[in-house]
Amino acid sequence: MSFIYLDNIAGTKPDPRVVEMMLPFISEEYGNPSAHFYPLGRKSYVAVEEARKQVAALLSANADDTIVFTSNGTESNNLALKGVLAVLKDKKHMIVSEIEHASIHNLLAKKVGEGYTYTVLKVDTNGKIDLDDLKSSIKSDTAIVAISHANPEIGVIQDIEGISKICEDKGVHLHVDAVASAGFLDVDVNKIKASTITIASQNIYGPRGAAALYIRSGVQLKSLLDGGHQEAGYRSGSENVAAIVGFGEACRIAKAEMKDYVPKIRSLRDQLIAGLGASFDFLHFTGSLEDRLPYHVSFWVEYIEGESLLMSYTQSGIYAASGSACSSNILAEDEEDLIASHVLTAVGVPTDICAGSMTMTLSKYNTQADIDHVLEVTPKIVNRLCEMSPAYNK
Amino acid sequence: MSFIYLDNIAGTKPDPRVVEMMLPFISEEYGNPSAHFYPLGRKSYVAVEEARKQVAALLSANADDTIVFTSNGTESNNLALKGVLAVLKDKKHMIVSEIEHASIHNLLAKKVGEGYTYTVLKVDTNGKIDLDDLKSSIKSDTAIVAISHANPEIGVIQDIEGISKICEDKGVHLHVDAVASAGFLDVDVNKIKASTITIASQNIYGPRGAAALYIRSGVQLKSLLDGGHQEAGYRSGSENVAAIVGFGEACRIAKAEMKDYVPKIRSLRDQLIAGLGASFDFLHFTGSLEDRLPYHVSFWVEYIEGESLLMSYTQSGIYAASGSACSSNILAEDEEDLIASHVLTAVGVPTDICAGSMTMTLSKYNTQADIDHVLEVTPKIVNRLCEMSPAYNK
Repeated sequence: MSFIYLDNIAGTKPDPRVVEMMLPFISEEYGNPSAHFYPLGRKSYVAVEEARKQVAALLSANADDTIVFTSNGTESNNLALKGVLAVLKDKKHMIVSEIEHASIHNLLAKKVGEGYTYTVLKVDTNGKIDLDDLKSSIKSDTAIVAISHANPEIGVIQDIEGISKICEDKGVHLHVDAVASAGFLDVDVNKIKASTITIASQNIYGPRGAAALYIRSGVQLKSLLDGGHQEAGYRSGSENVAAIVGFGEACRIAKAEMKDYVPKIRSLRDQLIAGLGASFDFLHFTGSLEDRLPYHVSFWVEYIEGESLLMSYTQSGIYAASGSACSSNILAEDEEDLIASHVLTAVGVPTDICAGSMTMTLSKYNTQADIDHVLEVTPKIVNRLCEMSPAYNK
Repeated sequence: MSFIYLDNIAGTKPDPRVVEMMLPFISEEYGNPSAHFYPLGRKSYVAVEEARKQVAALLSANADDTIVFTSNGTESNNLALKGVLAVLKDKKHMIVSEIEHASIHNLLAKKVGEGYTYTVLKVDTNGKIDLDDLKSSIKSDTAIVAISHANPEIGVIQDIEGISKICEDKGVHLHVDAVASAGFLDVDVNKIKASTITIASQNIYGPRGAAALYIRSGVQLKSLLDGGHQEAGYRSGSENVAAIVGFGEACRIAKAEMKDYVPKIRSLRDQLIAGLGASFDFLHFTGSLEDRLPYHVSFWVEYIEGESLLMSYTQSGIYAASGSACSSNILAEDEEDLIASHVLTAVGVPTDICAGSMTMTLSKYNTQADIDHVLEVTPKIVNRLCEMSPAYNK
């Protein structure tokens, strides 16, 4: 069945060159990178180290920074936060934005049981935090600030360089989840002076099963997994060679080709926003339309439930995501339990007339025909759902 | 270059049927299993759940037991031990054998800093623990016993059913690392009544990047990774669909074909042991020759360093592993820092005349010609190294 995939925040289609690079490592090149004293193991070892360089290059990392491979963005976020907190034992305060990802909020909520406190920074109706607010929230016992570069549900990009400058000046760790932004925005560790940064393979045309944590030189953190000496002791356990190799290739491609595919995606995205906006005066976009991921559209429609919209789009062969009022299907890198209400409420969406939102996320594989089709079927879907809606008919 | 691979404990060559099953999921089937409301995501979701059933079937798990997918055996071991300890907060004592894996020993050593203590059970010269010793070591505050089903370095199989009976009677959790045994020995949760069991894909002709933790119904443990609701809340973060699918297929094949390939491997292994034993009276096998993994040979040669042996075999195109006196290259599922001395010393190998050991681990892909070749070149290698050895010439 043919379909239009607009749920790229939940994972992109791997680039065929990525797949090509991976193939040997799921079959004939099965050596263990730790067994690098014989050629079969050595090839795996060399391939992993080459991938590490490719990830580092995408982030413009410096020679003494560290790239640790993990299994997904959630693991990288956990490693960064728990790892830093385990070192800074006397600092028991953390700061996050109110629209951070479930992996961050759930983690902090658990830490409260261990004597930690945290400050939640409000966002404005554009979805952006206030830098003065951040500055005044940092206390003498603040261990770490965790702010995503861009929000997966409403697409808003934070002033992450400004945020990192404040944290640097105040001498507190900043962890940046860049899963939604890497490969689409400039994520350069010389501009974003975070202590740690998460990026994930599956969001940049790489395979599932690999992610990385960037660790700035001098930053200390403890590993989550105890065991062997893999990943410089930051992450014990056998490396997923094939996924790491694919991730490396995806980073190489992103670095080389972002300048080509990002404008193309942005142009299609802008057409989608313009077309949707022109269709209905009761369709509302969420989050800033300026400081926004180039592949990201998010909106809600008065009177219509997000899940009904999602179902109708699915039936039309358009695969997207919904942030419903009850539980969200928005997938930031991988998780399913972002509660839409917390992000939507945060940007001032009126909960009495909003019954859930839609998120459409494009990739370099989307075409003009895809966008034309979405804009063609949307009025039909919305009109039909409006007719069925008691609220609309009132 | 043609070679003979005898380091299967470091990872087996994936079965071609496993590779075949994985291929769609590294290219066209890129859906996120959590996005199961549209067909692309649903296919990934269904594939992961099918794999879960295949893993459960290999272990003869019951319907209300849980199979959690992780990224490797180390992560499964960490999840089991840390997860159970986090629930049983008042119980601060653990029991392990002295030949447990690095992931276990390192983990417990770290826990000592948090107020935990642990008992290390001695093994006899066959490498086996004493069940009475285990029984008398269990105290009122013992939280968990961690014993591997079989040791990756010396191949010894413990009486794991007897061990599990004791733990069951005493009401303490037993965690069993079955990475080296699953797919080759019967690992049946109705006979091995452990609370948790680790198995890994890469040791049973599956891909790297997937492992599982079996959790018996009623056993409570806390997750290591906070985030989304994947894996029933036991393991947040995006699933590595391709690796999980391959792992499932590997379990299916193992369950169906163990009865065929295990006798074949054992027969070749027995020839190797007989041939090596007949060659030199100063070649000594380590660990029990009876209670031994069917694919496992381990030995040391008086006067000769393990690393020299390893290098000579590598030069002859025979890839194996060495447990040297300084640091081991033995890879149990994935780790490189098993210190040979602790395992070799434990089984009574005299450290004054043993300068490291060799481990050769076979797979279903080894042939009669492989074994013939190893037996042909071994005398040449040993004789040459003896000539170079000052100790031998004395």
